[in-house]
Amino acid sequence: MTDIRRLAEHLNISIGTVSRALNNRPGVHPETRSRVLQAATELGYVANASGRSLRRGATNTIGFVIETGSPANQAGDNFFYIVTDAMHESLAERGYDLVILPCHSADDPVEYLARLVARGIVDALVITATRVQDQRIALLAKSAMPFLTLGRSETPGEYPWIDLDFHDVARRSVAELVALGHRRIAVALPEKDVNLGQHYRSGYLAGLQAAGLPVDPDLILRVATSEEGGYDFGRQLAALPHRPTAALLCSEATTVGLYGALRNNGIAPGTDVSIITFRENPQLRFLDPAPACFRTSLPELGQEMARAVLDLLGNNGDQARRNHKLWPMTFVPGASVAPPGS
Amino acid sequence: MTDIRRLAEHLNISIGTVSRALNNRPGVHPETRSRVLQAATELGYVANASGRSLRRGATNTIGFVIETGSPANQAGDNFFYIVTDAMHESLAERGYDLVILPCHSADDPVEYLARLVARGIVDALVITATRVQDQRIALLAKSAMPFLTLGRSETPGEYPWIDLDFHDVARRSVAELVALGHRRIAVALPEKDVNLGQHYRSGYLAGLQAAGLPVDPDLILRVATSEEGGYDFGRQLAALPHRPTAALLCSEATTVGLYGALRNNGIAPGTDVSIITFRENPQLRFLDPAPACFRTSLPELGQEMARAVLDLLGNNGDQARRNHKLWPMTFVPGASVAPPGS
Repeated sequence: MTDIRRLAEHLNISIGTVSRALNNRPGVHPETRSRVLQAATELGYVANASGRSLRRGATNTIGFVIETGSPANQAGDNFFYIVTDAMHESLAERGYDLVILPCHSADDPVEYLARLVARGIVDALVITATRVQDQRIALLAKSAMPFLTLGRSETPGEYPWIDLDFHDVARRSVAELVALGHRRIAVALPEKDVNLGQHYRSGYLAGLQAAGLPVDPDLILRVATSEEGGYDFGRQLAALPHRPTAALLCSEATTVGLYGALRNNGIAPGTDVSIITFRENPQLRFLDPAPACFRTSLPELGQEMARAVLDLLGNNGDQARRNHKLWPMTFVPGASVAPPGS
Repeated sequence: MTDIRRLAEHLNISIGTVSRALNNRPGVHPETRSRVLQAATELGYVANASGRSLRRGATNTIGFVIETGSPANQAGDNFFYIVTDAMHESLAERGYDLVILPCHSADDPVEYLARLVARGIVDALVITATRVQDQRIALLAKSAMPFLTLGRSETPGEYPWIDLDFHDVARRSVAELVALGHRRIAVALPEKDVNLGQHYRSGYLAGLQAAGLPVDPDLILRVATSEEGGYDFGRQLAALPHRPTAALLCSEATTVGLYGALRNNGIAPGTDVSIITFRENPQLRFLDPAPACFRTSLPELGQEMARAVLDLLGNNGDQARRNHKLWPMTFVPGASVAPPGS
């Protein structure tokens, strides 16, 4: 770890310039800014390299990065409030505070993270909404900053993750529908770079295979993770010459849009097309028929994440970096599921 | 401003004890902890009293305190995500980052704030959900930390605030209902210490007075700001011997509960009892009849809050401390409002 003076010496530029670059102030050449951030990351810069901070555990603060501009959050998702509340409570028992670090919608998530790491304001970071190829993970893996990801990625590196079990949710959703006689089951996947889509897709395919059903590429669609995306999905299903009798959603944010699009096309959710969505949340309760979905304890998830981060900062940090946990979910039946042609 | 060494000297205790107290670590006597926090607040302690931080604007970070454990947040309110996203974007243009500082549900909000201020991790703070008598404001007013409140308070002190215009919303809600012929209008207020309730109540009374209507104490109820609170309100209205023909909600979080309680008592929302709720949000769209409510631009509110905070940190900080702004809202008609007995 190093302080701002040594960082400036290392780079052979003034302390003032280094400070402006670290703090995203104007008047720094983009190339210089990028050199400063890179050096700070690699050398393990901490903002206040006093005695207090020259050891791991300097700030007693854990950062939780979220993208506030995402449609799912703006639609009123309570996921992060509940997870962070429980995580914070667990951390506080061990003398740590949690801060939420919102990456605003106009900012580049990788640059934002580089700035955060460089400024050394937290002891460890949690990142969420992982991508298949995730530059943030590549950045963190090169830095001295301990981190946990909520979600996996194909980006190489040894780091701990916790991930909701999307594969198993999709596989079981198919099995539930097959048991009722469904043969044509559509699926709404997110954009290709969203990592959870890989696992949801593999679970869907595993479910079809277990049932001896063929894969119809027409039934595998990619839409935005938002109400609009759900509407788009429903519109596309309605236009298919050979319509599916059931549909799976890998995100609950798309549910209301799907209901709306089906109804606008004279198709009744539940009776004409069975629907299983992802995570049970308060908004789904307003829908009729009630959507079948999957339940999990978000407070327990937050507690588990607190444990995983504290393990990283403990004496067995190297071992904790290899902690990987698939988080199970329970099926919640709903009136949105019925035998085909009922 | 002072550093940890001078703080320890001032208190005549060890640097290690001061550090543990500031960071909420175990092994510090509660009385000592409280002395440390008080001294740090009064002397303007900053975590890293290097050259970089010995001036105002040391961290280039603004803290936004929210209570994550509140029922309104757990129910999936998108309010803070949208406000903070816009605020962060405005701040970033001036080289500041925003961090969300969640006060978890098991923590004491005043002690949490004292710890935050004492640790000096932000240049300025925003606090929300103000109380009629707000100990957090009393604490901040004594400290060197610039702060903005979203919501007013009767706690004395010179500080800037921005507040949604609850008085005007209630007054206009009454006027809308009176124009349709309503005479008996009930109102759901929050617990007494929630400051917005004072203004909503005064607007309700002003509306009745303008219409020459008497005040019936039976129609003024206090319930929790949650779905359960709304249910409780509806249950109490249904039990009244002389039932009101209309009801006002000072929080949108109570809307679904009120609908449910009325229906369970054979009362139709909209036709039997007209309803006007507070802020338009995505969840309300699922309700039938669509609730009349009030609209505002949350991104613009976030931008205004960024301006107010930056003004505090600018050259005219003393003047900026006297900035007070009532935030206007627009009435959105809905099928939940009809003439009485329709």
